[in-house]
Amino acid sequence: MPEIGIHTRLRRSPYYDATVAAGVTAFSPYNNMLLPLAYGDPDGEYRQLMDGVSMWDVGGERQIQLQGPDASRLAQILCARDLSKALVGQGKYVAVCDHRGVIINDPIALKIDDDCWWLSIADSDIRMWARCVAAERGLDVEVSEPDVSPLAVQGPMAEDVVASIFGDWVRDLKYFWFGDAEIDGIPLKVARSGWSKQGGFELYLMDGSRGLDLWHIVAEAGAPWNIGVGYPNPAERIEHGLVSWGGDCDDQTNPFEVRLTRFVDLDVPDDTIGIQALRQIAADGPTRHQLGIVLDGDERRPGHTVWYDVLSGGEKVGRMTCGTWSYKLERNIGYGLVSTSCSVGDPIEVALDDGLRAAKFVDIPFRIEDR
Amino acid sequence: MPEIGIHTRLRRSPYYDATVAAGVTAFSPYNNMLLPLAYGDPDGEYRQLMDGVSMWDVGGERQIQLQGPDASRLAQILCARDLSKALVGQGKYVAVCDHRGVIINDPIALKIDDDCWWLSIADSDIRMWARCVAAERGLDVEVSEPDVSPLAVQGPMAEDVVASIFGDWVRDLKYFWFGDAEIDGIPLKVARSGWSKQGGFELYLMDGSRGLDLWHIVAEAGAPWNIGVGYPNPAERIEHGLVSWGGDCDDQTNPFEVRLTRFVDLDVPDDTIGIQALRQIAADGPTRHQLGIVLDGDERRPGHTVWYDVLSGGEKVGRMTCGTWSYKLERNIGYGLVSTSCSVGDPIEVALDDGLRAAKFVDIPFRIEDR
Repeated sequence: MPEIGIHTRLRRSPYYDATVAAGVTAFSPYNNMLLPLAYGDPDGEYRQLMDGVSMWDVGGERQIQLQGPDASRLAQILCARDLSKALVGQGKYVAVCDHRGVIINDPIALKIDDDCWWLSIADSDIRMWARCVAAERGLDVEVSEPDVSPLAVQGPMAEDVVASIFGDWVRDLKYFWFGDAEIDGIPLKVARSGWSKQGGFELYLMDGSRGLDLWHIVAEAGAPWNIGVGYPNPAERIEHGLVSWGGDCDDQTNPFEVRLTRFVDLDVPDDTIGIQALRQIAADGPTRHQLGIVLDGDERRPGHTVWYDVLSGGEKVGRMTCGTWSYKLERNIGYGLVSTSCSVGDPIEVALDDGLRAAKFVDIPFRIEDR
Repeated sequence: MPEIGIHTRLRRSPYYDATVAAGVTAFSPYNNMLLPLAYGDPDGEYRQLMDGVSMWDVGGERQIQLQGPDASRLAQILCARDLSKALVGQGKYVAVCDHRGVIINDPIALKIDDDCWWLSIADSDIRMWARCVAAERGLDVEVSEPDVSPLAVQGPMAEDVVASIFGDWVRDLKYFWFGDAEIDGIPLKVARSGWSKQGGFELYLMDGSRGLDLWHIVAEAGAPWNIGVGYPNPAERIEHGLVSWGGDCDDQTNPFEVRLTRFVDLDVPDDTIGIQALRQIAADGPTRHQLGIVLDGDERRPGHTVWYDVLSGGEKVGRMTCGTWSYKLERNIGYGLVSTSCSVGDPIEVALDDGLRAAKFVDIPFRIEDR
């Protein structure tokens, strides 16, 4: 694969030098930052996450800060989920939709203070979007991207590592809740979150000049647990049913189509962007849904880099939006974004680069018995 | 340099397979597409552009289409330049600003029809921005990203190549004007444009399934002129004074700071986004401006990938936003985004990775006598 051409439009995270020293072999752009995506040992990196603990430079997961008297109002206008009862210190997974009800990002919304929210975003420019909405509606709120760069610690041993650094209070954090902390003079927030289903934390570093210090503190603290380096792991996230906005969604995708119905509240205020469209879609029923796909054959294929057509009875019924070798199923699996006429168990074909491949629809998350 | 980690969030252009066959060695993300940035012979690729003709996959330069009764109104709301006298077939270089007067993109606005515009954008999500504005203001216009992927033909021999394919009418096209064309059943628009100062055209392919066909037609037609492969060339663009939005601009940069004053019309309608802020900045005078920088020393340095502080009399006066080896000056050059207290001729220092480097401010575009 060709190199990534780096220039001044692609920013380095505060952990950049440490990831290079750790042997990063591939970067992906993410919010115009360099996000590590490989360190040369995919099998080992998967096992590290599943069985131990790994640390991830997810500095590309930027925080969009809404600050001012109208911050909470703007947060609600942007998010199709009821935020009125959220408490300071609480985060919620939300769908940010456009006026058509199409998802344009799926951040964690963190209530930092009564007049301050962070949207911890996926890979699209919500800063620009939020500023546009705030200005067009005349709201009294400042939208900015503060100096905050998350470092994720993920895996079944992550809690022990993070508690060894910050104390046992982190063990009591509920999912998506967070608290202030400081280590060696480094200001940060510790949140129970992260883009895996193996458990863990994100350390929201609040001083980019201390990135390498924080990296080394975590690496040293994690040494007794044999901590390794990692990244948002495609095999783990697909096996366990996490949606990749941008990866699994197109320019028409609403939350109901990708299993996010329970994160949408249809009774939010009428000025929430997209809520009228979402109510209509909910009433009509969405035309597509997301199903698991297991390909026939047990030869190990590379991860998908494009979407492939899915055929049922020779007719196109949708597309396969991601694909990975599953260590758990020992099959090649992925998601289909397909017509609601499709059901689990249906035999299908996927039009891969190298020809039609028999496959079947299964439930998400994937189970070994479905292979 | 590490690989670029490709996944389904990074789209291939219709010319992708041809660029791989031609030996692309590096990609950069651009509007979530893979934009070739190197083919392994930087000196030869520069010479090809300066002395001959080269073809560039710039499919990442997406078109944002505004279509409907309010299309022209929305175009004017988005662009801080008077578009009222533009004719169908004409393009104009524009600054899209946010409500603070900060540039968020610098596209070519092409008037496709009386009720249709394309914004041929730099690397930020103007589709999302335009949709937000249209919906918030209740405009009757559809914002989309049509199946259009430019292929650039650039260099002093570009006109001969393009005329040999489409006919001599292309020789009469004025800068940024365009016309409809068809070759071998492939629909496209031919525009006199492109991100170099060596002259040339952009072929707006309007059927992505025919990308490889168009590539081969241009390659064959260009063979008598020894056409080569290239990409938006950092050395050429810096030597000749082209601004890279995103590369040379930060989250505070207005058009006056980066030599785009002549593309701003302060008398556009009051509902143009950012125009009040721009009028105020014009009245007060901007606090920064863009100057050329020539570093002392004639050792060839790699292209800059980060911004460096610029010091005058030991005080920080701004930053150097790009840097390249200049074949023309045989020096390392770049741009400074610096205080308006700085002037051409001032001696300065640049805080490079490997220490302070003496330098001087010069005019843009660069002249050999300024080295």
